[in-house]
Amino acid sequence: MATCWVPGAEGSGFGLDNLPYGVFSRATTEPRVGVRIGEYVLDLAAALREPEFAQSSLNAFLAAGSTAWRSTRAKVGGMLGSEAGRRHAEEYLVPLTEARLHLPFEVADFVDFYCSEDHASNVGRMFRPDQEPLKPNWRHLPVGYHGRSGTVVLSGGDIVRPHGQRKAPDAELPSFGPSERLDFEAELGFVVGTPSRFGSSVTTADFAEHVFGVVLVNDWSARDIQAWEYVPLGPFLGKSFATSISPWVVPLDALAAARVPGPVQEPEPLPYLQRVADWGLDLRMEVRVNDTVLSRPPYSRMYWTGDQMLAHLTSNGSPLRTGDLFASGTVSGMDRAERGSLLELSWAGTDPVTLADGSERTFLADGDTVTIGASAPGAGGSQVSLGAVTGTVRPVA
Amino acid sequence: MATCWVPGAEGSGFGLDNLPYGVFSRATTEPRVGVRIGEYVLDLAAALREPEFAQSSLNAFLAAGSTAWRSTRAKVGGMLGSEAGRRHAEEYLVPLTEARLHLPFEVADFVDFYCSEDHASNVGRMFRPDQEPLKPNWRHLPVGYHGRSGTVVLSGGDIVRPHGQRKAPDAELPSFGPSERLDFEAELGFVVGTPSRFGSSVTTADFAEHVFGVVLVNDWSARDIQAWEYVPLGPFLGKSFATSISPWVVPLDALAAARVPGPVQEPEPLPYLQRVADWGLDLRMEVRVNDTVLSRPPYSRMYWTGDQMLAHLTSNGSPLRTGDLFASGTVSGMDRAERGSLLELSWAGTDPVTLADGSERTFLADGDTVTIGASAPGAGGSQVSLGAVTGTVRPVA
Repeated sequence: MATCWVPGAEGSGFGLDNLPYGVFSRATTEPRVGVRIGEYVLDLAAALREPEFAQSSLNAFLAAGSTAWRSTRAKVGGMLGSEAGRRHAEEYLVPLTEARLHLPFEVADFVDFYCSEDHASNVGRMFRPDQEPLKPNWRHLPVGYHGRSGTVVLSGGDIVRPHGQRKAPDAELPSFGPSERLDFEAELGFVVGTPSRFGSSVTTADFAEHVFGVVLVNDWSARDIQAWEYVPLGPFLGKSFATSISPWVVPLDALAAARVPGPVQEPEPLPYLQRVADWGLDLRMEVRVNDTVLSRPPYSRMYWTGDQMLAHLTSNGSPLRTGDLFASGTVSGMDRAERGSLLELSWAGTDPVTLADGSERTFLADGDTVTIGASAPGAGGSQVSLGAVTGTVRPVA
Repeated sequence: MATCWVPGAEGSGFGLDNLPYGVFSRATTEPRVGVRIGEYVLDLAAALREPEFAQSSLNAFLAAGSTAWRSTRAKVGGMLGSEAGRRHAEEYLVPLTEARLHLPFEVADFVDFYCSEDHASNVGRMFRPDQEPLKPNWRHLPVGYHGRSGTVVLSGGDIVRPHGQRKAPDAELPSFGPSERLDFEAELGFVVGTPSRFGSSVTTADFAEHVFGVVLVNDWSARDIQAWEYVPLGPFLGKSFATSISPWVVPLDALAAARVPGPVQEPEPLPYLQRVADWGLDLRMEVRVNDTVLSRPPYSRMYWTGDQMLAHLTSNGSPLRTGDLFASGTVSGMDRAERGSLLELSWAGTDPVTLADGSERTFLADGDTVTIGASAPGAGGSQVSLGAVTGTVRPVA
């Protein structure tokens, strides 16, 4: 592999084998598409002079399809890894400190799955202690539901603690007020580029033709609102107040070295859900509240892989649109230190976690900052960073 | 009230007290906004020369807000009800037979509620015969969930029977194939015009400042797919293959004579859900399969009214976007002849309905055309028609 001439890029997690896309602006320019390299953003509209980059979202580029994605990636890699490229592109590098980041794409439909066996089992044990932890359908299909695309927001903002209706188990009647059980969920999100036709389905084999890349997702959850509202039609306002995503969309092509077989599935899935390639991902995730690392969820254990989520989502002929986002559901592992939500970490509030400053949490306190980061193995022992998704809880004004 | 000079408009259900908005094109013109009057469309871009009407969706007009909605309604009414208006506008009338209709607005987020006590009770009795028909939360909040906005389609198209995974109660394992329990759901949909701020909620009093009007909705449902997938996160692929809406958005202002108090609510809702105006609607709906009227669901019995749905939807601070669509859920009444879905009409397939041609249905057959129409009382004994939403079931090619 070529060497990157951008100072500090090699070894930063944002080297030549990553090259994620986002949208940025400067004091004097409108939002436009950029590629992150080390602690800089390459201004693609200036460097490549193609109109789909002079836009305030990635959608035009996402819609251009996998051939365009690969050719752009090769061009950018060549530019950042050669002396000729340096002469052309150096003036188009913008320090991250001078860039304001924006939501990288316009979200069409947002689906949230429930693909971690450990997470679904933990939730089942807590909410339905008298039943089998997993519902009968769980090993036969990736359970999922639609979320609110209008409340998908960029990492880094304030998350206002939502109000809502909830009923404590020992209360006679429900009440309305700020959520008392505000939580995070550490997830991976898949970003759809190439649309599909109405009435057709997308096979597991065509996953990388339609999905451009991934972001980190924090699916903020108000557990008290959710617990009261969710029967029989599923989560609604307990989720729809905010879902944060990381600013840099990492192309699937940057995750080649992270691909692993998914877990063995027993029973064998129906033919439309069978895997034909390895789309398990060996991502190391890390969840922090303020300065304390609370858990390291292992993405490679996710029972259902991205290609299976996509095949299921489209199996009824539902078309994909550019900008569709589907997320994995909370990533959790077998150990307490691998759990991707406070609901599981504190076992529904019965077993608080202790932060570095000695304070305890069952759920999030006002002022808490949640940071979910991840990295993947890159080429030759390097690391590909997915960056991080953060947010800070604020009380209602 | 003035008299309309358009031939046949008075008494047609599309007279001066209706004036619904849609999007149409002709062989020689791009899609643009029109108002239906009798069997004609008034070309608004030509008649009013305002740029928000020379667009392929209503969204720009919807975003203009309630003052603009009222002023445009007054202008159009004046034009279609005066001799001076006739001289100006007659040349901009397009016969409906020459107009191709399009989806009237770009759908932002789509929410489906569950507001009929009779429907929710029927479903509860069928699916959970050993429990109370209504879940404990049902009388405390309008239960709802997010649907897939990318599969909201215009009335009149083919509905391809979806494939999906389902498990018959007596089968050991699930299988994949065309749905064997394809159904309709007769609903009313509310179309949001004015957006709201992130983190703020909309009160019941502000309903008509944000909601522009209504459409009829057929929330096509694959009951076998839905029954297997829906625990614990709610309906997903059993709904997301298609949702049809009627072509003409009827403004709330056209429904003034249809407004009635909603049903008495016991227990009294929490303050954020309390009504301050009458937003029950005395709509007479009619559901046909092919040439047979199967039911006449009474919208006025809906337990939760539109203002309450909106207040609940935004109670967690979730913002509204122009083009948001929220639907009432299936409209059903107490009698069999008032049930708004085949699931209820055939009591989960155990009690077939008979069509005029002597054939029986438990669920929809390929080739069946479903038509859901509705009308409301207008001024002085006239009728305001909501038109109809139709669709024809086709087998997978």
